Amino acid sequence: MRPRVGVVLAAGRSQRLSAVTRDGSKALIRLGGVTLVERAVRGLLVCGLEEVIVVVGYHAGPVAAIVNNVSPGRVRAIFAEGWEAGNGTSLAAAEPFVVDEELFVLVTADHVFGEGALAGLMAVGDPAVLVDEAPGPDAWGAGTRVRLVDGMALAFGKQLPDPSIDCGAFVLPHRIFEYQRMAAAAGDTSLAGAVTALAAAELLLATPLSPGTWWHDVDTPADVPLVRGLLRRSLKKESDGPISRRLNRPISTRISMALAPLRLSPNLVSFLALLLGASAALLLGLGYGIVGGIVVHLTSVIDGVDGEVARLQLRAGPAGAFLDGLLDRMADAAILAGLGVWALTESTDALALILTVGATTGAMLSMASKDRIAALGLPPPPEQPMGYLLGGRDGRLLIVAVGAVVGQPLLALGAVVLTSVVSLGLRAFFVWSGAGRSN
Amino acid sequence: MRPRVGVVLAAGRSQRLSAVTRDGSKALIRLGGVTLVERAVRGLLVCGLEEVIVVVGYHAGPVAAIVNNVSPGRVRAIFAEGWEAGNGTSLAAAEPFVVDEELFVLVTADHVFGEGALAGLMAVGDPAVLVDEAPGPDAWGAGTRVRLVDGMALAFGKQLPDPSIDCGAFVLPHRIFEYQRMAAAAGDTSLAGAVTALAAAELLLATPLSPGTWWHDVDTPADVPLVRGLLRRSLKKESDGPISRRLNRPISTRISMALAPLRLSPNLVSFLALLLGASAALLLGLGYGIVGGIVVHLTSVIDGVDGEVARLQLRAGPAGAFLDGLLDRMADAAILAGLGVWALTESTDALALILTVGATTGAMLSMASKDRIAALGLPPPPEQPMGYLLGGRDGRLLIVAVGAVVGQPLLALGAVVLTSVVSLGLRAFFVWSGAGRSN
Repeated sequence: MRPRVGVVLAAGRSQRLSAVTRDGSKALIRLGGVTLVERAVRGLLVCGLEEVIVVVGYHAGPVAAIVNNVSPGRVRAIFAEGWEAGNGTSLAAAEPFVVDEELFVLVTADHVFGEGALAGLMAVGDPAVLVDEAPGPDAWGAGTRVRLVDGMALAFGKQLPDPSIDCGAFVLPHRIFEYQRMAAAAGDTSLAGAVTALAAAELLLATPLSPGTWWHDVDTPADVPLVRGLLRRSLKKESDGPISRRLNRPISTRISMALAPLRLSPNLVSFLALLLGASAALLLGLGYGIVGGIVVHLTSVIDGVDGEVARLQLRAGPAGAFLDGLLDRMADAAILAGLGVWALTESTDALALILTVGATTGAMLSMASKDRIAALGLPPPPEQPMGYLLGGRDGRLLIVAVGAVVGQPLLALGAVVLTSVVSLGLRAFFVWSGAGRSN
Repeated sequence: MRPRVGVVLAAGRSQRLSAVTRDGSKALIRLGGVTLVERAVRGLLVCGLEEVIVVVGYHAGPVAAIVNNVSPGRVRAIFAEGWEAGNGTSLAAAEPFVVDEELFVLVTADHVFGEGALAGLMAVGDPAVLVDEAPGPDAWGAGTRVRLVDGMALAFGKQLPDPSIDCGAFVLPHRIFEYQRMAAAAGDTSLAGAVTALAAAELLLATPLSPGTWWHDVDTPADVPLVRGLLRRSLKKESDGPISRRLNRPISTRISMALAPLRLSPNLVSFLALLLGASAALLLGLGYGIVGGIVVHLTSVIDGVDGEVARLQLRAGPAGAFLDGLLDRMADAAILAGLGVWALTESTDALALILTVGATTGAMLSMASKDRIAALGLPPPPEQPMGYLLGGRDGRLLIVAVGAVVGQPLLALGAVVLTSVVSLGLRAFFVWSGAGRSN
């Protein structure tokens, strides 16, 4: 069975980080606009947990205030008496709140997980610990090492010589509280003590970190910029086209990180991007090719920011994606119309109009056909070739920007028509050859 | 467990239908371009069966020739010695071919089922018979009645006074062949005899026909036009807009029925519809408003034919739906561009171009947003209001047709922009209010 409840340990103080926290709680360090404790909570909710209990201690008031705001009714803070003794004691405070759960998830607030890093652990359905089997030397040096035998974790400890370390994420049975009391009676009030006692007596699966995901423990001031960088780089998407990947994302992710502390709504950012696109359209329509082209490229860069901000703050959802898609397409149409109005001054009117409608249709269909393929339940065609043919949004806006800067609106429209036709043809070909195979 | 194999009984002769069959096999009567036996086979394949055995007897050669062509490797004909004795004897011939199946589906070729009529029966996973609990008086008069007690079928017979009749579709266990031998030994070589023996000894579930679906037994010459009408009316779709439902479908379904004997590929029809749309675009671009408008409306009518032909002949699939969607959108873009070129002669160029791009964008997005909603896994918004606001394809093409006939291209473009904006706004509103509820 999948666990239903998560526990986040956010009670501890960190003297090593006092330069960053100014002696406040480590759980309140903001990365990408979100405090560590909120990121931990949202990370668990995104994984499908129904309820999250956050154990607070040091600077309990400010931490609880943030926690109780995340998703009232699903998330709440509880205070751990004697949290100073160690995070094993903090864990003990959660016992009355998970009394009905066969299994629950445990993470500590100072561990940051990349998208999907916890998914494997959640799916196991048995007591388990997430382990990093190939940590970097710094992480290994600071980490709690795990002795692994046959896929089971047998012991935990900072002094073990083993190469694997635990990632601070567990699926635990209710009996962990008995083991915690045993360890505490023996003088060990740490979480590692409780988990070691469990692993010695019962089977504890070691779930390896999924490839392509990441985690990091925020322990020293040097970790803060490091995790910020990891977060920023994780905003890229597999499906990004080549222009987006090389030209746009390096800029847009930095903008997103810079905007993050403002906690703008991603939907507001989507509207601002449309406004920028409309400005580009106006400039192009008035024949200001160079400025217009630059603003078109800016629109292309800003295109990524709404989604990045949403993912950075774990607030991404289908309704936002729907709005983003709709507004992007409107911006594209406006930009192409602007280019068309400019082109009217340079060619026969009918040609300019037909090319503009063709380019608009191509732009709309190249995006719509992907959705239609998904809606019809067909296997998705590879997007790589479309990207290199500049058939994606990133390529299309680059063509428009370059065409505008060099003062060739009609040529740019024609090029958009051409790349759209080729990309659509390719996509249709993949659908048909795929349909042929599956029959 | 779901059955994997189907058996179609197509061995019988029908003297009552000899006027229609010219003394050939009843299984070869064509309705909607497809013989009864092929329709029965495809109906089972569409339901997900992996293999279909067709029992042939009377005019075995021509029937087998058709059967072996439907889906070689999945469908084959077998000959029943002594088929003249009755359809129980025909069933017996299938025994060696379903020897490994715990359950199999049995239908007779002369029973026509509407879309979805067999789905409930297939899903039961136990021996069952499909029953019509409220047949019309003619069907009841000619039908095999079923005695129902507590959802079980207890007896079958033409002389029973019970109100329910069986629809000629069964899920049967392998033991049916023993019961058939018992019935035959007692002198009853009919299918009803075998099934009655089964129902007397074991539990046989009675699955009621799903509401909104239909079936019909082709038994007399009068049934032929009747079933043809049922097939034609079943080509309408729940999702049809009001213009489509009232103006277009009554014509397009008749065209589809008339074209059916030609067995044109639905994809070819899609291409022909695009060609028609392109002709309309050319006429509009040259300013031939009245003829152009009429051809636009014709395009709107023909729009339905490809899908209708595909469903009529049980050949609908996602790759065809993808192509249809793509070509429809291209036709729309061409028609709007034609209207735009015409409008250039009647207004300032920039206004005509901007309205044309706006109308094209609206047309593309109103279709694309539905797919995007499906692709994102969001609940579909109600389409009724869009239909009455003329925001669907049917409404949009009507606006264009009327605008063209009355010589107002610019006004028509403006109206398309307006209805698209309102429909899109409504759809976005539903997505947002739905997303709010589900959070």
